[in-house]
Amino acid sequence: MSLSELREQVWQANRDLVGAGLVTLSFGNASGSDRDAGVVVIKPSGVPYTSLRPDDMVVVSLAEGTVVDGDLRPSSDTPTHLELYRRFTSIGGVVHTHSSFASAWAQAIQPIPPLGTTHADHFAGAIPVTRRLTDEEIDGDYERETGVVIGETIAALGFDPLHMPAALVASHGPFTWGSDAADAVTTAIALEAVAAMAHRTLALDPRTEPIGNSLLGRHFRRKHGPDAYYGQGKA
Amino acid sequence: MSLSELREQVWQANRDLVGAGLVTLSFGNASGSDRDAGVVVIKPSGVPYTSLRPDDMVVVSLAEGTVVDGDLRPSSDTPTHLELYRRFTSIGGVVHTHSSFASAWAQAIQPIPPLGTTHADHFAGAIPVTRRLTDEEIDGDYERETGVVIGETIAALGFDPLHMPAALVASHGPFTWGSDAADAVTTAIALEAVAAMAHRTLALDPRTEPIGNSLLGRHFRRKHGPDAYYGQGKA
Amino acid sequence: MSLSELREQVWQANRDLVGAGLVTLSFGNASGSDRDAGVVVIKPSGVPYTSLRPDDMVVVSLAEGTVVDGDLRPSSDTPTHLELYRRFTSIGGVVHTHSSFASAWAQAIQPIPPLGTTHADHFAGAIPVTRRLTDEEIDGDYERETGVVIGETIAALGFDPLHMPAALVASHGPFTWGSDAADAVTTAIALEAVAAMAHRTLALDPRTEPIGNSLLGRHFRRKHGPDAYYGQGKA
Amino acid sequence: MSLSELREQVWQANRDLVGAGLVTLSFGNASGSDRDAGVVVIKPSGVPYTSLRPDDMVVVSLAEGTVVDGDLRPSSDTPTHLELYRRFTSIGGVVHTHSSFASAWAQAIQPIPPLGTTHADHFAGAIPVTRRLTDEEIDGDYERETGVVIGETIAALGFDPLHMPAALVASHGPFTWGSDAADAVTTAIALEAVAAMAHRTLALDPRTEPIGNSLLGRHFRRKHGPDAYYGQGKA
Repeated sequence: MSLSELREQVWQANRDLVGAGLVTLSFGNASGSDRDAGVVVIKPSGVPYTSLRPDDMVVVSLAEGTVVDGDLRPSSDTPTHLELYRRFTSIGGVVHTHSSFASAWAQAIQPIPPLGTTHADHFAGAIPVTRRLTDEEIDGDYERETGVVIGETIAALGFDPLHMPAALVASHGPFTWGSDAADAVTTAIALEAVAAMAHRTLALDPRTEPIGNSLLGRHFRRKHGPDAYYGQGKA
Repeated sequence: MSLSELREQVWQANRDLVGAGLVTLSFGNASGSDRDAGVVVIKPSGVPYTSLRPDDMVVVSLAEGTVVDGDLRPSSDTPTHLELYRRFTSIGGVVHTHSSFASAWAQAIQPIPPLGTTHADHFAGAIPVTRRLTDEEIDGDYERETGVVIGETIAALGFDPLHMPAALVASHGPFTWGSDAADAVTTAIALEAVAAMAHRTLALDPRTEPIGNSLLGRHFRRKHGPDAYYGQGKA
Repeated sequence: MSLSELREQVWQANRDLVGAGLVTLSFGNASGSDRDAGVVVIKPSGVPYTSLRPDDMVVVSLAEGTVVDGDLRPSSDTPTHLELYRRFTSIGGVVHTHSSFASAWAQAIQPIPPLGTTHADHFAGAIPVTRRLTDEEIDGDYERETGVVIGETIAALGFDPLHMPAALVASHGPFTWGSDAADAVTTAIALEAVAAMAHRTLALDPRTEPIGNSLLGRHFRRKHGPDAYYGQGKA
Repeated sequence: MSLSELREQVWQANRDLVGAGLVTLSFGNASGSDRDAGVVVIKPSGVPYTSLRPDDMVVVSLAEGTVVDGDLRPSSDTPTHLELYRRFTSIGGVVHTHSSFASAWAQAIQPIPPLGTTHADHFAGAIPVTRRLTDEEIDGDYERETGVVIGETIAALGFDPLHMPAALVASHGPFTWGSDAADAVTTAIALEAVAAMAHRTLALDPRTEPIGNSLLGRHFRRKHGPDAYYGQGKA
């Protein structure tokens, strides 16, 4: 894949976040990585989505974090994205949003329990919330520390990052990831739908129990892994 | 009706689900049946709605479940649709969605009580929720078992399926049906509106009582059966 | 005003209900009256809003309720509209919707308390809810009885109908009225906004008190009556 | 900046309120000030947003409140805007809306606590709610008194108005302000997003604690003040 194609993909992913209704003002950002080339392509900081062009996407070194190509400053959340690419070596795309229901769970510092098959189609268990960052982490290399605490959270649960492709950062909002930027966008859309549905479920009955492992596993395996039978397959 | 017309109808029904705001990503599916020809036409699995064409609809044998015509895999929920067509012999269309409020009721494993005339215009009583599937059913022929449990639920309540054209599958979401695919879509739209309204009603007063049989019957009969006087009649 | 102009106005009012997001499927209807001509023009029953044309509007006799002109059946709610025109002699338009938040209040059988100035800009007090209809009323001339109970509710509160241009029918939904069909549509839009805002306010604090008479009166009089100073005046 | 440019800016700001979904009917208004010219340009009263043209914007004297140019009456809320421009000498734009979630907090007479970084990105602390106006204030120079009580509220908290660019008027709704009309619109959009998110957070856990000063300060300073590193800088 050429750098120009990656820029186009990342630009499209950022626009798809808007199209899906996940974006208010210039909140949020999507990135994609070409690991062979050692780069991450990411949205510039604070530029209105409506005026974004593919060439505005900023190319950053995966190892160093320095800007390799592009005239604009990269998203202020770039160090978080880079930390995730370094820790989750199987991923090729990262998305961050402040979508309303997912952010409400993050602000309540509660994981989203798996209450139904919409959840199980996308996530292999409860969607975790990180611990709060310490004052030292906040006052220090804040954005990188945000990536560190996400990485710790997924590792502590023992998940393959592609089986739990999302985490809620406490008092902040969701990050999602996937095989590429488009895949991370799909997960961000599914996450917001699942977050709204779980919110509305608990309003009806706060004691609703998570679904059992049979149903969780069945739905997750319908879409993921060697026994998947959802979709048209990958020839 | 030719097979080509049925494909067009089912394609239109799937698009109408999107137009009505009931669809996130590629969740959900609509089908229609030509009982004389012994076939069901259904959406292909996991194909984005935006790129669907009428010719992508898959033709499946009602008796055998095998693909009779079409290049794509049918929806993974096809065995549920087939089971419903076999059990509810008067229906000609089935719709499945993960619409947000109806799925919240399904996840809370609560029937939607009839709290007003919007409900009564479409459903002859509380909209039922199925029992949970057993681990054996989940690990076995899962999608067919989903249809079996819906069939059991409607049968146990003694409803004519066209008088109770919807059920919530526990921990999953709604299925609706009707005389054809378009009719099942109409019911899916009404169901989501009724589910939201009931949710908001109980938030105001959790002890709201269901409406009485007089009002329920009056509104249902305005639109359904020999004494219907809503609409322009069927000449 | 010619009958053709009234048809156009009523058609536009029905379309504006859709544009404002108050309509699901073919729920709801708007009408307008020419009292000099002794007629009410109303939406036909059960016709999709998208295919409505001005000529589809049905002309009904205000005194008799019979169809005077038009090829289609009038809305099944026509007797409710007629009863309101007969009781509220100053009005020229009526609207009925099943808008979600207003219907939730109607289903909870609770009046909407005046909690802020958005309410006071449009309604001179709490928006009332009718009593439940009796089984005799439901089984009898149901739609006319619905108009009777609305009329009783407004009369019992002592309101000029143009100062309280809305009521919630218990277990059903809202009716609004005004000087013409467009005015009744404006009130239906304001009512849904006020219903949502009040719902969200009580979720934050169920004990929120209604605003006092000073603020209620000041805002209502800014827009209504001889001392109004909102808008561009009527020259 | 010419008066014609200011009119265009204020017209655009009013249209952007509609585009952002913050407006129902003709609720709300945006204004901008040219302090050197001693004028405020504001939306006319009660004119539908769809028919507004730049030339409809009304030019008012900042010192006197009299109409300097324009054929239409200025917004009935003009005295509130003028009072804010006089008290907050660093601002160049004011916006008033009745957006649903922010108005719900105003109606509940509760400040919006800072529960996450979306809040901290825009507001340096809890978004305050004013005290109720007295009957004397309501019956007197009501709109000016509304500006007075907002000014008192911000002053009592010791905030630089550009660090706390919003207040909720008790039982009414939000006012926001900024360096110009567009900036005040951005804050009005962020406020409604933050109000919805906080509402949904407290529904999950009513005891959610406000975020600490470290996180609040870090995010606010990312976007505001000499150490800001969000966006593309101002060259």
